[in-house]
This record gives sequence, C-alpha cells and structure tokens, in this order.
Amino acid sequence: MLKLYIANKNYSSWSMRPWVLLKQAGIPFEEVMVRFGADPFTATSSFKQAVLAVSPGGRVPVLVDDGFAVWDTLAIAEYVAEKFPAKQLWPQDVQARARARSVCAEMHSGFGALRSACPMNIEADLSQTGTIVWRDQPAVRSDVQRIVTMWTELLAQHKGPLLFGGFSIADAYFAPVCMRLKNYGLPVPAPITDYIGRVCALPGVKAWMDEALAEKDFVVADEPYRVAR
Amino acid sequence: MLKLYIANKNYSSWSMRPWVLLKQAGIPFEEVMVRFGADPFTATSSFKQAVLAVSPGGRVPVLVDDGFAVWDTLAIAEYVAEKFPAKQLWPQDVQARARARSVCAEMHSGFGALRSACPMNIEADLSQTGTIVWRDQPAVRSDVQRIVTMWTELLAQHKGPLLFGGFSIADAYFAPVCMRLKNYGLPVPAPITDYIGRVCALPGVKAWMDEALAEKDFVVADEPYRVAR
Repeated sequence: MLKLYIANKNYSSWSMRPWVLLKQAGIPFEEVMVRFGADPFTATSSFKQAVLAVSPGGRVPVLVDDGFAVWDTLAIAEYVAEKFPAKQLWPQDVQARARARSVCAEMHSGFGALRSACPMNIEADLSQTGTIVWRDQPAVRSDVQRIVTMWTELLAQHKGPLLFGGFSIADAYFAPVCMRLKNYGLPVPAPITDYIGRVCALPGVKAWMDEALAEKDFVVADEPYRVAR
Repeated sequence: MLKLYIANKNYSSWSMRPWVLLKQAGIPFEEVMVRFGADPFTATSSFKQAVLAVSPGGRVPVLVDDGFAVWDTLAIAEYVAEKFPAKQLWPQDVQARARARSVCAEMHSGFGALRSACPMNIEADLSQTGTIVWRDQPAVRSDVQRIVTMWTELLAQHKGPLLFGGFSIADAYFAPVCMRLKNYGLPVPAPITDYIGRVCALPGVKAWMDEALAEKDFVVADEPYRVAR
C-alpha cells in the first residue's frame, strides 16, 4: 500500500496536491500525518526530524511505495501517473500533456508573491487581509492576473469543466491556489469563481477541506494575520 | 526543427539546463537568444516583451516545436524525453527515474539561499565573494550540504561517472549548480569537485561555457558583486 506523508491539512498546500490527486483518482493509500508542531521549519524541530527519517529533503509530501521514497510533489505526480496509467492522470494528447506539465512546473517554481502574502489557511476567512494585500501588493495582482489568464485559456480550449476537460494532475496542482483565492477573497472574474467552485466540489478536494476544518492546530509560522483560530 | 529560446549564457541558469540537455543528447535544435538587456525583469522591458510573444509566462527557457510552446525547464525536459525515447534522457529503471525526478523537482523549487546568494556567472571568479557568503550565510551552507549529500549518495549508488550512471536530465539540471560551486569556490569534498569536473568536460556543457565566456554583456540585475567584467 502506498503511504503518503503529509502535514496539517489546514496549512500544507504542498501536501494537499498529491493527497487530492490520489483521493480523487480513487487510488488507495495510507495517510501519515506529521503535524507541523511548534517551529516546524528549524532543523531540530520534531516535524523536521520525523520527515527526515523518511526523506532526505526533510519536506512533505513524501510518497513511500514499499519502502521506496518519492519526494517533491511533481515527482510524486509523475510516479503515480506512471504506476497507474489507466487513471489517465495526465491528459492523453501529447500537446495537452505538455501544456499541463508547463502550468504545473510554472506553479512549482513560481507565484512567489501570492504564496508568500496569502499562505493557505482553509478554515480562516481572510477576506479583509485579502483586500489590503490586493490594494498594496502589485506582485500579488500580477500573479493572480497570470493565473486568471492561464485558467481562462485552458477552460476555453478544453471546454471545461476542469482545466484539461476531465480531472487531471493540473487541477490537483492548482487546488491550493483555489483555496487562497477563495479564503482571501481576491477578485477574479465569474468564470474563475465558477471553476473554483467546481474544484471545491470534487469529492477528493471536499474530503481534504472537511478534514482541514476539523483540525485544531494553530501554527504560528503559517499565521501571519491571526493570533488564534 | 525545435527552437529553444534562451537568455545570456553567462547568466541564465534556467536556460542552460535544456540547452545542455539537447546538445549533450545530440538532438538538433535552433537556438534563439533573447539577451537580457537593461532591466530585464520589469514587465515593459524588451526582454520580457520578446519572451511574452512566444510564451505567456514571460520567462526563458521556452521550447517551440512546430509553433507549439513548451515552457518551464522541467516540462521541457519531460517533453523532450517523451519525443526522443531512444535517447533515454531519464534513467530506465522505475525507481532510478523516480529518484531523478525527485532531485530535479527539489532543485526546481528549492535551494533558494544558494541561488540568491550565488547567481550563476560563468565568466567571473567570485571566490572571494564565495568565502564571505560561506562564512556569513548558514542557509547557503545548508543548501550546499544537502547537494553534497545527494550527489554523494547518487554517485555511490549508480557507480558514476554521472549522477545516474550515464548522462541524464539530472546532470543537465544540476550543471548550473556545478557552475555556482566552482565560480564561488564553495568548499566541497574532493569526489564532488571531481563530479563537477566531469560535468564541465561534457561536450554539451563545455560548449555552453565556451559561448558564455565569449559573451560581452554585463547585466547589472545579475551582478550583485561586480561593477564591470
């Protein structure tokens, strides 16, 4: 059985991607939750030590398949896509698949302003913060503009309902971005709001969100805008 | 014919990866050089406008195959690996391939301290700067330590001469890291220096370095430590 090491569902945007991918694709796996705890990103934290025991990068998510560790979200997605070809996790058309990989890789290394200013926080209403971020941070507006353009083109080209028609790795990859846009109330056109709604309604995404809401942790390192839940 | 859009060979670490991959694998392509010019990273720069004309992300590298654009280095690598399966650009063994993707994806999103403190600059001897960076920046030392551990394990496991035995996408991916370690003179164990030497001796890497040395541009945005060449 595949084991997927993740951190808190409320906060860990990277963990969300492969979890949603596996869940939505109906691939059985065992979840291993490593809670962030206090000071999770220092080398000596219990979080770091627990993750280092399974993966030398010391970061979640990690997929362990019969003792073999695959780390980093994009590598996990490729591994799962290869292992379960019948699930068609990447689009089948060569160019659509290349485009899906382009947008996932762009997400993997980019959108730093949005990620930094609007850390994922599924249970919080951060719309007031979002208004200020939107007003003051042109780099965030620019990131969101790029996402809106990208999604609009893909939804038009593949005729929806998801980015490449049916569910693919790309939707799992952008699910945490949907959370950010929604929770910070960042202004996006109606068709984008509708796409976010469809992503949130996917059973794999909804299951993650429900479990995020049920968590009780308050991780200071992920809470630049609040003092308590 | 494949067209590869890149920026200055002296500075553009992301451009180096797919260029070296194609060159070293003997895959014919046409290079389109978009020089950084002044202020390359502003939205209105000539560099940005030229890249936006072929790729909506506005970043190099971009691979254009018969009018179809593939952007972001990792997506380009996957596209080329799929298009030329006989070149075996990823390792053939499932686990080795997964591991190669893990370390490339880890590079794709990580090592921020090293990348920020030691931007690639092939023609410069920045060893004095490197000494100061090494002394003052624990995050850089930590990045280098992770790279040393990773490479040491891979070289031992696959018995060299390169990370996964023969040349693979992983070596192309880490070629710019070799440049940084070398030009900033960061202290690494002898087997790592030897690996860097072997990477530099690959014809595809040597060709890139030679052309970088022949460039005459001085891009201020990529020169935190010098006022002239």
